[in-house]
Amino acid sequence: MRGVAVIGVGVTKFGKHERTCAELFAEAAADAIQDAGVSPRAIQAIYYGNVVGGEGEHQLHMGPQAASVLGLPTIPTTRFETACATSHAAFRHAVMEVAAGVSDVLLVGGAERVLNLPTDAATEYFTYASDATFEQPAGMTFPGVFALIARAHMAKYGTTEEQMAHVAVKNHRHGALNPKAQFQKEITLEQVMKSAKIADPLKLYDCCPFTDGAAAVVVVSEEVARKSRKPVWVRASAAASDSMFLHDKKDLSRVLATERAAQAAYRQAGCGPEDVDVVELHDCFTIAEIVATEGLGFFEPGTGGIAAEKGWTSLGGKLPVNPSGGLKAKGHPIGATGAAQIAEIVTQLRREAGPRQVDGAKVGLVHTLGGNTATVLVSLLASE
Amino acid sequence: MRGVAVIGVGVTKFGKHERTCAELFAEAAADAIQDAGVSPRAIQAIYYGNVVGGEGEHQLHMGPQAASVLGLPTIPTTRFETACATSHAAFRHAVMEVAAGVSDVLLVGGAERVLNLPTDAATEYFTYASDATFEQPAGMTFPGVFALIARAHMAKYGTTEEQMAHVAVKNHRHGALNPKAQFQKEITLEQVMKSAKIADPLKLYDCCPFTDGAAAVVVVSEEVARKSRKPVWVRASAAASDSMFLHDKKDLSRVLATERAAQAAYRQAGCGPEDVDVVELHDCFTIAEIVATEGLGFFEPGTGGIAAEKGWTSLGGKLPVNPSGGLKAKGHPIGATGAAQIAEIVTQLRREAGPRQVDGAKVGLVHTLGGNTATVLVSLLASE
Repeated sequence: MRGVAVIGVGVTKFGKHERTCAELFAEAAADAIQDAGVSPRAIQAIYYGNVVGGEGEHQLHMGPQAASVLGLPTIPTTRFETACATSHAAFRHAVMEVAAGVSDVLLVGGAERVLNLPTDAATEYFTYASDATFEQPAGMTFPGVFALIARAHMAKYGTTEEQMAHVAVKNHRHGALNPKAQFQKEITLEQVMKSAKIADPLKLYDCCPFTDGAAAVVVVSEEVARKSRKPVWVRASAAASDSMFLHDKKDLSRVLATERAAQAAYRQAGCGPEDVDVVELHDCFTIAEIVATEGLGFFEPGTGGIAAEKGWTSLGGKLPVNPSGGLKAKGHPIGATGAAQIAEIVTQLRREAGPRQVDGAKVGLVHTLGGNTATVLVSLLASE
Repeated sequence: MRGVAVIGVGVTKFGKHERTCAELFAEAAADAIQDAGVSPRAIQAIYYGNVVGGEGEHQLHMGPQAASVLGLPTIPTTRFETACATSHAAFRHAVMEVAAGVSDVLLVGGAERVLNLPTDAATEYFTYASDATFEQPAGMTFPGVFALIARAHMAKYGTTEEQMAHVAVKNHRHGALNPKAQFQKEITLEQVMKSAKIADPLKLYDCCPFTDGAAAVVVVSEEVARKSRKPVWVRASAAASDSMFLHDKKDLSRVLATERAAQAAYRQAGCGPEDVDVVELHDCFTIAEIVATEGLGFFEPGTGGIAAEKGWTSLGGKLPVNPSGGLKAKGHPIGATGAAQIAEIVTQLRREAGPRQVDGAKVGLVHTLGGNTATVLVSLLASE
């Protein structure tokens, strides 16, 4: 297979917008195309991620709509949806199209808009990503799913609520350095610990927000990449699944799909967790970051909370995690999140992340999780 | 790139079902896996198509749900959505994954269920595949879109309502030979002409029905195909888009995305329309079949209606179109339609179509259209 690289990235401000998903995507896409230095006419297909546009905007078939709004209506498009992992899945399929030699220049990204909806409607639509037969009727919204995971991790390993709070404090500290982040303000451990209970033991500041936003990246063949400034190479892109049903999962303190996707990605890239310099991972809730840092092989099972507490995952620590602020502070426009994570790692590996730059970063890992731990994507990117 | 083949197909009965999309898909998938003669454990990824499951079943993230219900919860899955072309898009991306050498055995298909919904709800959700900014607020449902196309074709070429009616009569005659079809009864020209007006000039029998159903196919590498019975080879799979907006289309009597996708597919396969022996195409409305037979290069622009009237597209005619009964009589479970069309062509090229077999069929074409002519997929399959 051919080499594949990312040569351009674009991300809108995350937060509340009064624009459609297609319009948000067009902004991110135009920025990514300009950053890539390619002609818009060079793009051979658009890989578009969105989750709840049918429910929120009454808009399905969003691919050609986004292409039309972008001014590129004749470019073939496909919409991808794998819950919160949506645009990372789109990215992986795009990498395969380029690797297969079918295309040389692809535009990949996603958009989501929910802040125009009442909060209870947004909560309901997000819940559609969990099983409608068994779990939705039981009232199992995502804070509930991750509260169960937190309880399991606390019971098995002694992980504390304070350790989870450290994840929130750290990601807000990082987010304060990111001008695109939804929340650009630091918070204290006390604020997290005193915030309202959402689903015990998770409190308001353990949870990522609802967010509008879009992100896009330009994925190209090695031949095109060689002619561009600062290409970032795709060394691996792997997907894994686990049962949709919580009642099928034997150990809620682990996310098996993360472990499987990571193993596959390390195998593809011929490296291991010790080679990774910077990570963007799926911290939809603080416990999710702790479990992910273990599943990705960075810390032993049960020690992810300690790593957060000791600052190992902070900027300046031994393995900076979520320098962008993560889903927690940067925000989580679900259909755009994977592409935004990839954009952050590309920016880090190009050494263009300004005050949130991870010194000497050469290898970056992107981890995105969909639904109640049923879908996970892991990609490895490298500057060389 | 490597050779790619289809070695197994499965289609549920089309019509009304009291099962979820995931359960319908599991039936089709199990049949496809058995037909392929592969172990379920050999499947490396599931490509799953669905359009309105979020709206109709409150179920997004359907890939892992379908995999879990199928009993294969650890197989990576991606959901695809390109309106009515959804599972044909999934098929094209799966072909690229196999061609790229990433996988050898993939399960591809889709499911849709709408007959549990009130008809006005189903109509509304389908309309989400057209643009929400300009066209939905104007009341532009799909019968309206295709009525405009019919009027343009009639004005430009003199196509008649009787010629459109001939498409319906022919597809019902074919559907009567297909035990999986939703409507297995013949109809007369008079019945069509006297049926209720839906969107002038389209009448009830010019329109395909709402349908529940699922379809699946097993896509494999050449190496795997060589060990299986009667592989059918994928000679081309191409996608094309056109503007989402009707007001951008200069000539409603043509579907430019069909013409572009067909040209790309013929180029990939190194053949032309004259080499095609059997066709499954997107007859969501009778006029759509007429326009598609022209856009695919089978008949000169303006003569698709004459071809229908003269019986050239009937079983026994010079180019049988929609031997399955088409969307018109077989039914149109939108997320499953592309995979079902591919399953029919595979069945034809294996010479296993029983009373609806096209004699001597060696090359088949599949055409699927999404939304208001914004997305088109064309694939070419061959028995040799």
